[in-house]
Amino acid sequence: MKKPIGIFDSGIGGLTVYKEIRRHFPEEDLIYFGDTARVPYGPKSPNTIIAYSMQNARFLLQQRIKILIVACNTSSAVALPDLHKITHIPIIDVIQPGSEQAVLHTRNGKVGIIGTEGTIRSNAYSKAIQYLNKDIQVFSKACPLFVPLAEEGWHDNEIVKAIAASYLEELLQKDIDTLVLGCTHYPLLKNVIRQVAGDQVVLVDSAEAIAVYLGRMLSEVDDGLSGKDEFFVSDNETKFARLAEVILDNQTFSLQRVRLYESWFVEDN
Amino acid sequence: MKKPIGIFDSGIGGLTVYKEIRRHFPEEDLIYFGDTARVPYGPKSPNTIIAYSMQNARFLLQQRIKILIVACNTSSAVALPDLHKITHIPIIDVIQPGSEQAVLHTRNGKVGIIGTEGTIRSNAYSKAIQYLNKDIQVFSKACPLFVPLAEEGWHDNEIVKAIAASYLEELLQKDIDTLVLGCTHYPLLKNVIRQVAGDQVVLVDSAEAIAVYLGRMLSEVDDGLSGKDEFFVSDNETKFARLAEVILDNQTFSLQRVRLYESWFVEDN
Repeated sequence: MKKPIGIFDSGIGGLTVYKEIRRHFPEEDLIYFGDTARVPYGPKSPNTIIAYSMQNARFLLQQRIKILIVACNTSSAVALPDLHKITHIPIIDVIQPGSEQAVLHTRNGKVGIIGTEGTIRSNAYSKAIQYLNKDIQVFSKACPLFVPLAEEGWHDNEIVKAIAASYLEELLQKDIDTLVLGCTHYPLLKNVIRQVAGDQVVLVDSAEAIAVYLGRMLSEVDDGLSGKDEFFVSDNETKFARLAEVILDNQTFSLQRVRLYESWFVEDN
Repeated sequence: MKKPIGIFDSGIGGLTVYKEIRRHFPEEDLIYFGDTARVPYGPKSPNTIIAYSMQNARFLLQQRIKILIVACNTSSAVALPDLHKITHIPIIDVIQPGSEQAVLHTRNGKVGIIGTEGTIRSNAYSKAIQYLNKDIQVFSKACPLFVPLAEEGWHDNEIVKAIAASYLEELLQKDIDTLVLGCTHYPLLKNVIRQVAGDQVVLVDSAEAIAVYLGRMLSEVDDGLSGKDEFFVSDNETKFARLAEVILDNQTFSLQRVRLYESWFVEDN
């Protein structure tokens, strides 16, 4: 039976995950949803991140997907238990694959994690890494300006380098030899992060790690798959398309906007 | 009859407007709503900005306000005609007062506007200023990173200064003598903007301008007003409270969270 794989992210960053999956699995049908109306997720509270993640997942589940990939680290760190409550299909998050790669790569047992406020506050990476190897020391740092920089297309200039240097300073002082890019937007800033961190630090990119993970799960290929792509966003399709072209090396794609309705009430407490 | 004044903004920035209004009108009751769940508005599409602004306004109208102050420049630039459709109470936006101040202050007839992508794209300031004086030349520049910087509390450091210098360069080359801070978040970065722009450029802050504007409208004082404040946000009350304390010089305030429900559907087109 022909069923697509669903991927969601808070915005454009998850395309780095999409790209790796498409490269490894050219025959699979993929549906991508980017919540560009409500990006960024990183600074939001856990309740709000959970509510938004559930809505994104429900939209993809309506498209009859066979596997759900949570390409957003913030959602992965905070919303996973709630996502498992609404579906029985397999869910792949980005925390587990990234953590496994970090444990594989570190030689001195000192791993740095960078991510959004929501991801870092959750301690999801520390827990996952120390579950795999309790002797590894994990040092974390939230980098809240990286998502706006990536979404604005400021990927490689002196200002981005200065911001990266400011964020990474305390991790580098801890003598880390492995740095997890714990947000799917951060691979877009990889050149700058590489320059600041230096060649001796291994950069772990969850986008690459997740494709390996997915391979284990896809034991059999669906009949009738055509390698079709569908892209949905909740806002700003023009801007998304412009940045997506850069990330996806001018691949052509169909893009549709999903509209949202909301109502408000004052919380009782 | 006792009725409050309602103020909304996309987040924390509108507190600069609240602060000026509270200073000028100590007896008025004020209700502030910051849409911290969906900040920033600047990069969003007009349709989404209108939808969010209408929801914010409806929430305040339910509190039986007598005047609605749209403290968000992006909402003011894009959503005003739609807001007038849902209420007959007076609406004060931030574009008109800021434009009047710019026209009053410029001596060489060259005015710079900085704002979000949404505000600059709308040309709302250019139109308002040239309606007042068609001989004034208006130069505009979107500064998309200023809102994330302000919301992160990065208000005055070398990196913010470098970003400001990069944004303001082309406006300063045009020999502007007046610069409108066309976003209620920007007064939080005023020190840096002042350093980059130099002392010869007059900075127009809509927060100050709007209080003068409101004064003309409040011909009579309501009976029974007590100078009460109510603050509502849609997310992250702790972070809001922390930044609000800085902006409001440690004023104590009550803060309540408003929760939102949403549903999604694929747009027909």
